[in-house]
Amino acid sequence: MNAHVTHSTNPAMSQTTTAPARSATHNTFTIERRVKAPAERVYAAFADPVAKAKWFAGTTGQWTPDIRDFDFRVGGHERLRGTWHTGMVSDFQATYFDIVPNERIVYTYDMYVNTKKLSVSLATIQVIPEGATTRLVITEQGVFFDGNDDAANRERGTQGLMDKVVASVEAG
Amino acid sequence: MNAHVTHSTNPAMSQTTTAPARSATHNTFTIERRVKAPAERVYAAFADPVAKAKWFAGTTGQWTPDIRDFDFRVGGHERLRGTWHTGMVSDFQATYFDIVPNERIVYTYDMYVNTKKLSVSLATIQVIPEGATTRLVITEQGVFFDGNDDAANRERGTQGLMDKVVASVEAG
Repeated sequence: MNAHVTHSTNPAMSQTTTAPARSATHNTFTIERRVKAPAERVYAAFADPVAKAKWFAGTTGQWTPDIRDFDFRVGGHERLRGTWHTGMVSDFQATYFDIVPNERIVYTYDMYVNTKKLSVSLATIQVIPEGATTRLVITEQGVFFDGNDDAANRERGTQGLMDKVVASVEAG
Repeated sequence: MNAHVTHSTNPAMSQTTTAPARSATHNTFTIERRVKAPAERVYAAFADPVAKAKWFAGTTGQWTPDIRDFDFRVGGHERLRGTWHTGMVSDFQATYFDIVPNERIVYTYDMYVNTKKLSVSLATIQVIPEGATTRLVITEQGVFFDGNDDAANRERGTQGLMDKVVASVEAG
């Protein structure tokens, strides 16, 4: 077996044995946004199914959802599967682990493309009131499998989603 | 609300706003061990219920288990709850996310003490044959809540457990 162990967050810890057949690459990133809205409305963008569906979706015109489940409670599951115009099927499957209303949400998610599991991530959403605005902080600690995805790409994707959250809440 | 956001793995990203009422502290650590046994036997220490029970336990004489469940499959759950001689009840609740036989295991676990959730962690076990020995690598990416536990303490705990894995496997 060839194995590949890297840790993108700490170059000093990076280790590569041989070319990856199986690999597991670990990464952590944090994204922050300032939202011109109260914390309760920012929280609702992650907790309320109607508010979440406004921003949590593939690109309009390039993606068609076929499964959208959202059971927002500790132990509850969420799923969003859709087909891209290229034919690619993406499938997000999450489980909620910790919920503090208007403050914190912790969930894990598996990301699949064409039924192949790319990664498992532990995500923490923090919603922090600061005067009339709210600081939104998302931290994702992920493990990426077998070279099928890379953390930089995931971080770009999450950056785009957070931009959509801000736009959606501020338009509300 | 006071919020506290830190990332132990990357000091440059650390941020502290005010004293923590609610806090979520993120940390990643990796522990490696060389085991004088084939990869299949190291893997079995995590996959086989009898082999796992030999090392996955509290300190003998100081801890009494009362729940031990182990459903080792993707989507399956594991639980180990026990009472310490101090009266403290610890409760490990895991879910398996990815299993590659003899190579890789990915699971999340909630850690509770006296019914209070301390943390959620994403753990990756990698079992890598190297000649007649095996390299065992465990990576834990965790979020610790509200100052109830600290990552350094968890890392020490996992170090101790990995020592027990090595001793158990090498004892045959």
